[in-house]
Amino acid sequence: MPFRFEILARDARTRARLGRITTPHGAFTTPVFMSVGTQASVKSVTPEELLACQVEVVLANTYHLYLRPTHTLIQDLGGLHRFMHWERPILTDSGGFLVYSLAGLRKLSEEGVLFQSHLNGSRHMLTPEKVVEIQAALGSDIAMVLDECVPYPATYDYALTSQEVTTRWARRAKAVHHGTEQALFGIVQGGMYVELREKSAQELVELDFDGYALGGFSVGEAKRLMNDLIEQTAACLPEEKPRYLMGVGTPADILRCVKLGVDMFDCVMPTRNARNGYLFTRQGKLIIKNARYAQDPRPIDAHCSCYTCQHYSRAYLRHLFVAEEMLGPRLNTIHNLHYYMDVFHMIREAIVEGRLDTLQVEDITGEPNVEAPA
Amino acid sequence: MPFRFEILARDARTRARLGRITTPHGAFTTPVFMSVGTQASVKSVTPEELLACQVEVVLANTYHLYLRPTHTLIQDLGGLHRFMHWERPILTDSGGFLVYSLAGLRKLSEEGVLFQSHLNGSRHMLTPEKVVEIQAALGSDIAMVLDECVPYPATYDYALTSQEVTTRWARRAKAVHHGTEQALFGIVQGGMYVELREKSAQELVELDFDGYALGGFSVGEAKRLMNDLIEQTAACLPEEKPRYLMGVGTPADILRCVKLGVDMFDCVMPTRNARNGYLFTRQGKLIIKNARYAQDPRPIDAHCSCYTCQHYSRAYLRHLFVAEEMLGPRLNTIHNLHYYMDVFHMIREAIVEGRLDTLQVEDITGEPNVEAPA
Repeated sequence: MPFRFEILARDARTRARLGRITTPHGAFTTPVFMSVGTQASVKSVTPEELLACQVEVVLANTYHLYLRPTHTLIQDLGGLHRFMHWERPILTDSGGFLVYSLAGLRKLSEEGVLFQSHLNGSRHMLTPEKVVEIQAALGSDIAMVLDECVPYPATYDYALTSQEVTTRWARRAKAVHHGTEQALFGIVQGGMYVELREKSAQELVELDFDGYALGGFSVGEAKRLMNDLIEQTAACLPEEKPRYLMGVGTPADILRCVKLGVDMFDCVMPTRNARNGYLFTRQGKLIIKNARYAQDPRPIDAHCSCYTCQHYSRAYLRHLFVAEEMLGPRLNTIHNLHYYMDVFHMIREAIVEGRLDTLQVEDITGEPNVEAPA
Repeated sequence: MPFRFEILARDARTRARLGRITTPHGAFTTPVFMSVGTQASVKSVTPEELLACQVEVVLANTYHLYLRPTHTLIQDLGGLHRFMHWERPILTDSGGFLVYSLAGLRKLSEEGVLFQSHLNGSRHMLTPEKVVEIQAALGSDIAMVLDECVPYPATYDYALTSQEVTTRWARRAKAVHHGTEQALFGIVQGGMYVELREKSAQELVELDFDGYALGGFSVGEAKRLMNDLIEQTAACLPEEKPRYLMGVGTPADILRCVKLGVDMFDCVMPTRNARNGYLFTRQGKLIIKNARYAQDPRPIDAHCSCYTCQHYSRAYLRHLFVAEEMLGPRLNTIHNLHYYMDVFHMIREAIVEGRLDTLQVEDITGEPNVEAPA
């Protein structure tokens, strides 16, 4: 089953759309949240638990899997789906962002990125072609091109040079990408300069990718700037292709960006926050280690239908956290993922009913979005 | 439903018996293995996973729960079963062994044990009466008396004095234990002196406990010495009461001691070894981090029906271990608990069929028991 994107409905007063993406490992509805499974595992939970939380797509990290256990090993074992026992869609990132975050350990050239492994210091060259090859070996359903993520702040000249490298890399990636099974997405860069974002989008659209990602956001810029750039960049992208905002974000970010026409999201927030004892509810957040929960017999959220809320008290979850019991991060992760999936369900329902504009941050987080633009 | 023990069958050529213990939270068949959930959680797994592994009884640690989150808090929240979402039988230890292991942080007197918390250095007095009170608050199905665990080696005089304290403590515990719902077990001590073990057993039997534990083993003594002492002590205990060997042990230890008439066991071995990547199979052990498993597509054990063996390769489990992914300890724990439960199933089946003497260590571990007595 080749990659396909269909728009099923449009919201009445925002740019949001309800879509359906078909992949070799099944279909899912957009807007979608992809759960992060960096090293071929969504930390602490099984695929069955992900499914119970309504997770439909997992994101794995090309950079990590390339280094360990290596893409060739995963290929020999039948591909990433079989390796991690997840038979639903998988998106693999390009490693660009992770290489970017390595800072002193990397060197960029026209050819690609020379970097040192964070594991053992060994040197590796990632080129646009190599990144396509690695993801083909992993067998993910959606692959990403290698990009350069522009730091923030950056000068116009730096951002321009970088954007043009990203386009040339995208062209090279596209040239070596084969077959119709695995989709390949381009990544719009250009720093915080709207004209560069538009230039990047136009150049990538000419290359005709299966979808377009918005990269280089959530790197320290103001929410309002991010908002404006996403709005203007999305307007340069074709209606009939999915738009993926990489690494974003909070429930408030997501609601805002869906309204601007974004279809796909990933973020470590629900899972990482869970491990740190930060729990989301529609009535506001809970910091589970707080003493106020020590004797609290209630579930995290009385309205939540997740496994954790069905069976465990705040007092028990606090005890697990304080006692550093391994079950704690796991039960918290189940709850937070369930919450994120619930938010997306609310969002999709509001789109179908043409009333997404009336869905406010307070409705999904229980807290006003102080950072939201007017 | 009050505590009850019935003997259902006896092995033909060993002292092993098949029994049934009934508690307020259900019944289970003996010989039984109790999974260790020190801090009200069997590390990394849920109650549903324990049930899927055929675990029937969980052991929780009185000392740990007394200090954190405290027995009064657990009582206020409806008791330990509800707190940890485990509705099957729970045995709580007395804290005696843990206080013993604190070494420099404790001081024994006729009154009880004065000790310092390993968490914050606070001082606490555990008396036989207090330990009964704590376990009543926890609401476990089987409670243990406070005992003094004799170090090894110890002089005869030390062991005698200690054994006599343990008896006096047992008498005080029995005097304050109320109701017929929660069972109370005495603990036979006496160090490695058979006459003291016999004296201890006789004195405790006069007090008429619901069951009798053999404490103070696996503290460094030779397997043969342990074997002889257990054999001779068991002979002093009434047939119609269950016998519980505390903190033991390896599959080989267990098989040997079942043949001597022991009915109940607990040990951290399956769960702790799992977290360290040491996996049990009937064909021998697997140290999952070994490079030989890096590309091994097979499950831990092709004959095992546990969740882990049904879905994951050795290569994936090795990857999780090496990458320090939290899912690794969990999948390993499921396998090792399943293995232990399988061993007990084999043992019970052999007793029913009157052929336990023919069940050898090699049959359950795939490895000869070099330490076994002739």
